[in-house]
Amino acid sequence: MHILIIGAAGMVGRKLAGRLAVDGQLGGQGVDVLTLADMVEADAPAGFTGEVRTAALDISKPGEVEKLVAARPDVIFHLAAIVSGEAEADFEKGYAINLDGTRFLFEAIRLQSTREAAREPYKPRVVFSSSIAVFGAPFPEKIGDEFFTTPLTSYGTQKAMGELLLSDYSRRGFFDGIGIRLPTICIRPGKPNKAASGFFSNILREPLAGQEAVLPVGEDVRHWHASPRSAVGFLLHAATMDLERLGWRRNLSMPGLSATVGEQIEALRRVAGEKAVKLIRHEPDPFIMGIVSGWARDFDTSRAESLGFTAERSFDEIIRVHVEDELGGNLPTYA
Amino acid sequence: MHILIIGAAGMVGRKLAGRLAVDGQLGGQGVDVLTLADMVEADAPAGFTGEVRTAALDISKPGEVEKLVAARPDVIFHLAAIVSGEAEADFEKGYAINLDGTRFLFEAIRLQSTREAAREPYKPRVVFSSSIAVFGAPFPEKIGDEFFTTPLTSYGTQKAMGELLLSDYSRRGFFDGIGIRLPTICIRPGKPNKAASGFFSNILREPLAGQEAVLPVGEDVRHWHASPRSAVGFLLHAATMDLERLGWRRNLSMPGLSATVGEQIEALRRVAGEKAVKLIRHEPDPFIMGIVSGWARDFDTSRAESLGFTAERSFDEIIRVHVEDELGGNLPTYA
Repeated sequence: MHILIIGAAGMVGRKLAGRLAVDGQLGGQGVDVLTLADMVEADAPAGFTGEVRTAALDISKPGEVEKLVAARPDVIFHLAAIVSGEAEADFEKGYAINLDGTRFLFEAIRLQSTREAAREPYKPRVVFSSSIAVFGAPFPEKIGDEFFTTPLTSYGTQKAMGELLLSDYSRRGFFDGIGIRLPTICIRPGKPNKAASGFFSNILREPLAGQEAVLPVGEDVRHWHASPRSAVGFLLHAATMDLERLGWRRNLSMPGLSATVGEQIEALRRVAGEKAVKLIRHEPDPFIMGIVSGWARDFDTSRAESLGFTAERSFDEIIRVHVEDELGGNLPTYA
Repeated sequence: MHILIIGAAGMVGRKLAGRLAVDGQLGGQGVDVLTLADMVEADAPAGFTGEVRTAALDISKPGEVEKLVAARPDVIFHLAAIVSGEAEADFEKGYAINLDGTRFLFEAIRLQSTREAAREPYKPRVVFSSSIAVFGAPFPEKIGDEFFTTPLTSYGTQKAMGELLLSDYSRRGFFDGIGIRLPTICIRPGKPNKAASGFFSNILREPLAGQEAVLPVGEDVRHWHASPRSAVGFLLHAATMDLERLGWRRNLSMPGLSATVGEQIEALRRVAGEKAVKLIRHEPDPFIMGIVSGWARDFDTSRAESLGFTAERSFDEIIRVHVEDELGGNLPTYA
């Protein structure tokens, strides 16, 4: 089978490609071709025996994504996005990539599945990474899947619009789509990006590497998390499960862990000790605090769980996943 | 003040223009200019002492709607839409008018309010006519404003996307917007249009005019209605109320009347007698039945009511409004 990852150079995209390369199969079918698309050339994952194709392109430019779809991949992971902080700072860029890019992709698939239907039937699986940013405060104690989407960021607006398109294109039979609302991914490896949620990872990742980190919000801030390993697990399950079980309600919130920043810090203390915690510097940032105050804190994800999606149940577990997957099992030796 | 109505040749647009012409004011401010825009030239309303401008244009064509916004109207009513049946039958046309057209309008306002801010500040009131088609079955007994939008038509999808855009553009400060989800308008005057909901009006309007009408669904079908007079009332209230009371949740369901087709027919019998009822011919249509089965039946509109929106409380009242406003108070004399 042929798998296309759009947004393959991003953190989740790289991990997904790496996992597919190692597994060599998806849902019991061998992976022959892996196409990795992003704004920049993505690295080929290690250990893959099939063919890797890379494409550097801007999905917000008309005609670009059509080239990817013309090869008729069986499964398309659409992970590409301008993140929340940047989409808020650059209104036009956010709409261009997150809304137009998504629509161009869906349109390209529709035209393959309809105008070129004479060639042979085409109806790929489309897995869209949405976000809990589709919800906006005030919230119920736990946000269920039937709660309305009133985003308080342009990013959340664009993701909610993508969800609506995905459902409609699926209902019309152009592709078989599922939108999964990822929790904030914690602990993000690598360098900080422009996401306003970056500090949730920074305050753990940096101390675990013996480095200082800045905490721009109070310790009572509660948020919703899952590890990168869980995120890849969600995507693989979404790509292989029976979507008829969803009906036409094709978007759903993924399981995660609701925790305060204080609880994150306590878990860090348990796993890496007091010296790690001392590396966190408190520097309140009103801009970040403003964005985060509109974010969701806890979810009822019984629907996703009943469909077989799973995530971590403690922050100690999330930290251990990071130590295993990113640090080779090693904690730093503090001075 | 200058008022722009986009979709001014449609049924609700004509009634709104007529009412503004007669009132000569909106929220206590005199109306100097009324711009009536639609695909076709709209008729100037009777009795208006100010200036009427008409514009025939296609809002889905880039650059068209900018011309309307360049005149900086104080209030913009965006009523233009491809209706549900047609948007389902013509996928591309529905997205072009209902999504692209709406976005072009909002973008034109944004560019006026930002790039041309040097001229003088511009932040119009935007009233967007959305639809209960943003909701899709299965429903709770009564649909509240916090229920999620999972439309089962492309029309409903496009309206839900318009609502999201309206909220985001309002939150960003580009305009002051409100989206009102109109109930199915009953009794629609004039000829049937391509809306799948047309029969709800046909089975009353045609018999009240001494004509036969076709009922394509069963009498147990329950739906949500308000008169054209109420629809105009909603629009005027939305154009003048204090929108700060909405917060950033700028879209809401309007009050209406939940009634079955059987209850409509009983009201017709009470107002116009058995001979009127006999003019209804039962001809089940699976296509219409399929669309209607995904529609909402009843709503909790306490939010809208607390904000001052009101509608009819019985179908007898809805029929009497039609007889007054469309038939000069006269019922036909049946043979």
